[in-house]
Amino acid sequence: MLKLIKKISRKAGLPPGELVHVGEKKVDAVRVTLMKYDKDNLEEEIVPKPDRLPAVIDGSMVNWVTVHGLHQVGIIEEIGKRFDIHRLVLEDIVNAGHRPKIDYYPDYLFFLMNSFQLSDGDGDIKSEQISIVLKPDMVLTFMEGEDDISHIIRSRLRECRGRIREEKADYLVYVILDTIVDHYFVAIDRMNEMIENLEEELVTHPTPRTLKDINHFKREIISMRKSMWPLREILSSLLREKTGFIQDSTIPYLKDVYDHIVQVIDIISSIQDMLSGMLDIYLSSLSNRMNEIMKVLTIIATIFIPLTFLAGLYGMNFKYMPELEWRYGYFAVLSIMTLVGISMVIYFKLKRWL
Amino acid sequence: MLKLIKKISRKAGLPPGELVHVGEKKVDAVRVTLMKYDKDNLEEEIVPKPDRLPAVIDGSMVNWVTVHGLHQVGIIEEIGKRFDIHRLVLEDIVNAGHRPKIDYYPDYLFFLMNSFQLSDGDGDIKSEQISIVLKPDMVLTFMEGEDDISHIIRSRLRECRGRIREEKADYLVYVILDTIVDHYFVAIDRMNEMIENLEEELVTHPTPRTLKDINHFKREIISMRKSMWPLREILSSLLREKTGFIQDSTIPYLKDVYDHIVQVIDIISSIQDMLSGMLDIYLSSLSNRMNEIMKVLTIIATIFIPLTFLAGLYGMNFKYMPELEWRYGYFAVLSIMTLVGISMVIYFKLKRWL
Amino acid sequence: MLKLIKKISRKAGLPPGELVHVGEKKVDAVRVTLMKYDKDNLEEEIVPKPDRLPAVIDGSMVNWVTVHGLHQVGIIEEIGKRFDIHRLVLEDIVNAGHRPKIDYYPDYLFFLMNSFQLSDGDGDIKSEQISIVLKPDMVLTFMEGEDDISHIIRSRLRECRGRIREEKADYLVYVILDTIVDHYFVAIDRMNEMIENLEEELVTHPTPRTLKDINHFKREIISMRKSMWPLREILSSLLREKTGFIQDSTIPYLKDVYDHIVQVIDIISSIQDMLSGMLDIYLSSLSNRMNEIMKVLTIIATIFIPLTFLAGLYGMNFKYMPELEWRYGYFAVLSIMTLVGISMVIYFKLKRWL
Amino acid sequence: MLKLIKKISRKAGLPPGELVHVGEKKVDAVRVTLMKYDKDNLEEEIVPKPDRLPAVIDGSMVNWVTVHGLHQVGIIEEIGKRFDIHRLVLEDIVNAGHRPKIDYYPDYLFFLMNSFQLSDGDGDIKSEQISIVLKPDMVLTFMEGEDDISHIIRSRLRECRGRIREEKADYLVYVILDTIVDHYFVAIDRMNEMIENLEEELVTHPTPRTLKDINHFKREIISMRKSMWPLREILSSLLREKTGFIQDSTIPYLKDVYDHIVQVIDIISSIQDMLSGMLDIYLSSLSNRMNEIMKVLTIIATIFIPLTFLAGLYGMNFKYMPELEWRYGYFAVLSIMTLVGISMVIYFKLKRWL
Amino acid sequence: MLKLIKKISRKAGLPPGELVHVGEKKVDAVRVTLMKYDKDNLEEEIVPKPDRLPAVIDGSMVNWVTVHGLHQVGIIEEIGKRFDIHRLVLEDIVNAGHRPKIDYYPDYLFFLMNSFQLSDGDGDIKSEQISIVLKPDMVLTFMEGEDDISHIIRSRLRECRGRIREEKADYLVYVILDTIVDHYFVAIDRMNEMIENLEEELVTHPTPRTLKDINHFKREIISMRKSMWPLREILSSLLREKTGFIQDSTIPYLKDVYDHIVQVIDIISSIQDMLSGMLDIYLSSLSNRMNEIMKVLTIIATIFIPLTFLAGLYGMNFKYMPELEWRYGYFAVLSIMTLVGISMVIYFKLKRWL
Repeated sequence: MLKLIKKISRKAGLPPGELVHVGEKKVDAVRVTLMKYDKDNLEEEIVPKPDRLPAVIDGSMVNWVTVHGLHQVGIIEEIGKRFDIHRLVLEDIVNAGHRPKIDYYPDYLFFLMNSFQLSDGDGDIKSEQISIVLKPDMVLTFMEGEDDISHIIRSRLRECRGRIREEKADYLVYVILDTIVDHYFVAIDRMNEMIENLEEELVTHPTPRTLKDINHFKREIISMRKSMWPLREILSSLLREKTGFIQDSTIPYLKDVYDHIVQVIDIISSIQDMLSGMLDIYLSSLSNRMNEIMKVLTIIATIFIPLTFLAGLYGMNFKYMPELEWRYGYFAVLSIMTLVGISMVIYFKLKRWL
Repeated sequence: MLKLIKKISRKAGLPPGELVHVGEKKVDAVRVTLMKYDKDNLEEEIVPKPDRLPAVIDGSMVNWVTVHGLHQVGIIEEIGKRFDIHRLVLEDIVNAGHRPKIDYYPDYLFFLMNSFQLSDGDGDIKSEQISIVLKPDMVLTFMEGEDDISHIIRSRLRECRGRIREEKADYLVYVILDTIVDHYFVAIDRMNEMIENLEEELVTHPTPRTLKDINHFKREIISMRKSMWPLREILSSLLREKTGFIQDSTIPYLKDVYDHIVQVIDIISSIQDMLSGMLDIYLSSLSNRMNEIMKVLTIIATIFIPLTFLAGLYGMNFKYMPELEWRYGYFAVLSIMTLVGISMVIYFKLKRWL
Repeated sequence: MLKLIKKISRKAGLPPGELVHVGEKKVDAVRVTLMKYDKDNLEEEIVPKPDRLPAVIDGSMVNWVTVHGLHQVGIIEEIGKRFDIHRLVLEDIVNAGHRPKIDYYPDYLFFLMNSFQLSDGDGDIKSEQISIVLKPDMVLTFMEGEDDISHIIRSRLRECRGRIREEKADYLVYVILDTIVDHYFVAIDRMNEMIENLEEELVTHPTPRTLKDINHFKREIISMRKSMWPLREILSSLLREKTGFIQDSTIPYLKDVYDHIVQVIDIISSIQDMLSGMLDIYLSSLSNRMNEIMKVLTIIATIFIPLTFLAGLYGMNFKYMPELEWRYGYFAVLSIMTLVGISMVIYFKLKRWL
Repeated sequence: MLKLIKKISRKAGLPPGELVHVGEKKVDAVRVTLMKYDKDNLEEEIVPKPDRLPAVIDGSMVNWVTVHGLHQVGIIEEIGKRFDIHRLVLEDIVNAGHRPKIDYYPDYLFFLMNSFQLSDGDGDIKSEQISIVLKPDMVLTFMEGEDDISHIIRSRLRECRGRIREEKADYLVYVILDTIVDHYFVAIDRMNEMIENLEEELVTHPTPRTLKDINHFKREIISMRKSMWPLREILSSLLREKTGFIQDSTIPYLKDVYDHIVQVIDIISSIQDMLSGMLDIYLSSLSNRMNEIMKVLTIIATIFIPLTFLAGLYGMNFKYMPELEWRYGYFAVLSIMTLVGISMVIYFKLKRWL
Repeated sequence: MLKLIKKISRKAGLPPGELVHVGEKKVDAVRVTLMKYDKDNLEEEIVPKPDRLPAVIDGSMVNWVTVHGLHQVGIIEEIGKRFDIHRLVLEDIVNAGHRPKIDYYPDYLFFLMNSFQLSDGDGDIKSEQISIVLKPDMVLTFMEGEDDISHIIRSRLRECRGRIREEKADYLVYVILDTIVDHYFVAIDRMNEMIENLEEELVTHPTPRTLKDINHFKREIISMRKSMWPLREILSSLLREKTGFIQDSTIPYLKDVYDHIVQVIDIISSIQDMLSGMLDIYLSSLSNRMNEIMKVLTIIATIFIPLTFLAGLYGMNFKYMPELEWRYGYFAVLSIMTLVGISMVIYFKLKRWL
């Protein structure tokens, strides 16, 4: 989210309701697709011009309009005009970095959410804002780029798997929500894996980079939690409010999504606990290494400093030093030194330093 | 719970309501048992085929159907169909890793819980998800493996101990809940014992492994707390809502379970305080050991470095060094050295380093 | 509370409502006392057999039945039967380690509390569970051993001090509550004294034992807070609910107890702040001592290592070393050494190490 | 507050409602003053005997009775009897160490508060409990000693500044509350100044005493916050409840006091953040100093230990050591030593240790 | 906010409602400007004397009165009198350091807010208190100095951009609120930039100054959060309350501002997490550097201390030391020394210290 501050801050001073794209351009041209279906039929078409949209909508079927790419605000504006969507909703759609929310309008519901998915290439986690407008016979979804979520649902619709083709538009919104939440599990699984590798590394050879990684994951997981909490509120508000857009038969499904969200939040807080435990381990392992280093120094110094003193003693040049004249003085001193050294080693053994 | 993320994440992309087993297979074949009883009679039978179940149910008695093993989703599906249980409930039953919850359906109540028990072999703590469906004359329980809890209750039913045989199905659910909560005490007792051993070890010879163990227990205890908090909510919701499934005479018993849950949560938070106190002790004991090591080094170095200097002084080869010629120069230096050494020792005694 | 886990965990598996004593036996035989009084009369008797109790109760007076000793569950059971007390209430009475609570039954109120008192001998703090049953004309109190609290109230009744003899049973319960809360002040006063001694010790010569003591007091004070918070809830619930057991004239007195509880909680949190401040002081004093040790080592080493080098230099055996031949070479070197030593000392003075 | 525990604990065992002075005696004799005023008149008198009070009260004016000194409980008791004040209120008045609160009685409101003021002599912060009883035409205030607050308001009344003389008794209470809250700013300003001095000291030469001071201010500021939070509750309860004692025109003024309280709480939490930041600085400055000490030791040791070795090498007494015979051997060794020394210094320069 | 304590504390003792300027004088003379507009017309004028204001107000247009400079309290008082604004509101206007709030008066709404803006010169963040009074056909804004916010809105009004000229006074207030919140993004963007620079510095060469900077940003960001939280409350209260001052069509716009505030709070908490992560990195990097220093010392000492001992050994002056007589004794010792040195280096390589 911090990456977007600069873009958002540039918008300051513009009159409200003026559409300005805030986000990352992910596709070259905006692509508007219409999929209309009921139990028996399914039609798909790409709509080159959004002003043709009302003409191709069929009120007796469920109409799903998906818009990929948000940087051509003119197209979004056109769609908004055709379907009577409030300017502020359009502004929310083209501005990334929002907190998930639900807005109740008399003619439609507006959902704004973040999905977390694995990117295909490097397995990194990328997040994307998804906006959904639910009308009685119609669902509009808006997102920045091509994503797995609409891809999966589209093929499920084509293959006619599950109850989705038998249900109304509200069930389609449920399926989208459910798929978004399911992908959180995938993202968290990936993150968990990376954190476990990090924990491995932490134990074997901790470096300052490890700490930076722990902090990185902390922020990542916090940003996930920040997407999940408002999502929970959205669902609970949706279950509480009587809006007429949601059929009674869809309610248990939404409750199920709610339960999954709570489960995600639980897992996230487990990972947070794990990460803060890792910080403790890191800091204490620093102290441990210091202890190790100090021990080596102390052992060497404590053994040799007294010996060196002894050697220095008999290196003195006094005229009258009786020991120097003794036949076995040298060997006596060597023996004493060996004795001192050995007793030091024993002392350290007793102290468990060796 | 983290262990299950991978399995849950694989479910992403499947249509909702499709039964997929997420969990650990603990028994080879699913075993369905029926126990029906009233004050005077008790019949037990193993039901080989779940489609026979409705036929053997007796509406005038309390019927307790237990299902051990959840990996054959076909059987669960069959039972669901026979007793009109919602697909989403069935999905919850076969998916481990859920947060405890209660769902109110018009025809039944659905409870989902985690039990914490000691495993027989090694005394480790294992947790298991238990699902309960309460209908007016019938209780269905689902779990992954053979467990102590249903075993205990079954023998109590057979031996006709307590009021259980005189009461209805809601009382049986109460007994199950109570037994689950009682087993938390057993698990916590075991954990407390292990933590006390750890504390002993912490004081005598702390190692980095001790820290890992502290972290391990922290996570374990947090996962227990995460099971208890929603259980508390379940009970308080059950006491608040008027559902018709719970008799008035059972209410005080449920309140009693509620009190026990609060007691468990209290004990858990005491243990958490204890563990975080242990972390402080560990970290400060690291500093203490460093101080110990430094003291040894400092004492040795501070005593011998000046002496070695003195020895070096009289090892110099100057032509004219009057002391070297003195008759008792050597002994004078030896005396001075002894004096310096003794005064150093006295200094350290005064500083309480020795 | 942790001490009781083992005992509670042994109860797991027993049918609910079966009375099992969980706690510490403090008196040899259970002793049941009846005290009945009104404004003008007061009668005391020891009731050897609890089945005689209903006969000696006088509905026109306030009847206070005290039971000391809970290990003979048969007696408790008998009393419960005679006065129609729910089995679960009896179970609570004989099981120590409960969280304070209030239960509203149609015929009576049930209070469960912990008292903290000084033990007579060593001035240690001991806690005890006190159960109170309030009926319109009667108060039953149950506790493990002989305690100061009932002793104090009994003598106040005998001496007819304050308004207690003029009021009903609810006022007696108020007096008990008030005396329990008052004794918290005594216990906290004692604890505060011991903590202040500890603080003194912390400043003069901190040891690892000091840290253990800090942790010990932390746990003790947390366990007190854990008794106080639910007590606060009990009082606020009592003030809110219309039960018919509490007279309007007693309400201000209960509010006063409530205020005292809040005061205790405030003092407890002050002590907690003090203890966590002591932990900071302890940890930083460890670092300080390390600094002290290091300073001594550094001063000695930094002064003598260069001097030793100089001595070593002129201890070399080169054929041609002009300084060695000089008349005052030796004294020149001695002067240089003195100079180096003094300048080092000045350097440390400037660095404020000496 | 902790200072009072001992005194409060001595009260344990006394029957409730028995007046016992708990606090610090600040004046020799209790002094009761009456000030009655309306828009045009103002009369002041010292009331030697409290039983005369009802006679001198004038119902057509605002009567302000101030009592300085609480140790003669007989006088307080007498006043209580004359104006029908509940025994428990009197008990609260003579017992210091209370949490601020408001009690609603049918005939009067009872406020209990703590003021924080600068003491005249040394600029230290002293706190005092102030009790206020508000009756329709009368305000009674009780405090331990002579204070700035009543002094200021009295002179404002005499000089007829502001609207105070035109308003009723509730406005007088508002003025007292406002003046108390204003004095918090004065106290916090003083504390802030002292903390800033401490911060200065922390940076220049931190000592263990600095840490003790930080802890001292922490406790002080926490005790202020503990007085402010309940004060906030008092005000918000007063604004919410319809009591009949507060005129509608006074409401905005009370809201204003409420805002000031919130502002004080905000400032307090800023200071708390500052103090905990100072703790971090202190602890890290300890580590920094250790680093400094270690650097000096390491630099000296690392330069001279190899040199001393070299000197020792050529101090050996082997018969055949060719270098010793060389004409310029000694100077060669001196050059090598200089070289080694210089390259060490360069190494430390590169490591930024010098 | 702390900077203002001194000024606020000086106010203590003054009667309430007496206007005293608390704040920083930013302009020389107070400047009152009137801008009146509707869809088609816009008039601007500087009002030299505030008593002329009511005369120039046009009830059929939106009248926006801006007051820059608050130190001449007489002018504020005059305006207050002319438009019937409560004395306490005027007091709030001239006293800086308030917590943002909204007050509902029958004839107007009063908003008090803090703006955070970049100062033009050095890019530092400065905060300013902005007071707004909303009447049906009129908006009054008060602030200390010339600011970007009113400047931006004025030019938007002149250029007739957006819907602002078509709407009523409540929309103007919305635009002011929106612009204030937008400028938070600008300020946070700047702060984020500075913090990232700091993080860079933290990794390359941490100094105690870095810690002070971290603490500085912490306080800054906390003071922002403290402005945002009450702003959130203001908006949610405004959306909840039916006041008649806000048109229904403006509600969605206010909701939008609410969402932006929540977004700012989210970003602020992200930055807080970042800062506390930086503190961990700082503290651990101190430990790391200590380890580095200790390693160097230990390596040097551990290599040379045994060698020096050897040299000292053969510097002894015993009469009979056979090695000294050997032809290649010297070279043998040199070889042994080389061997010991090399094996030490290998040992450190294995320990990864080199």
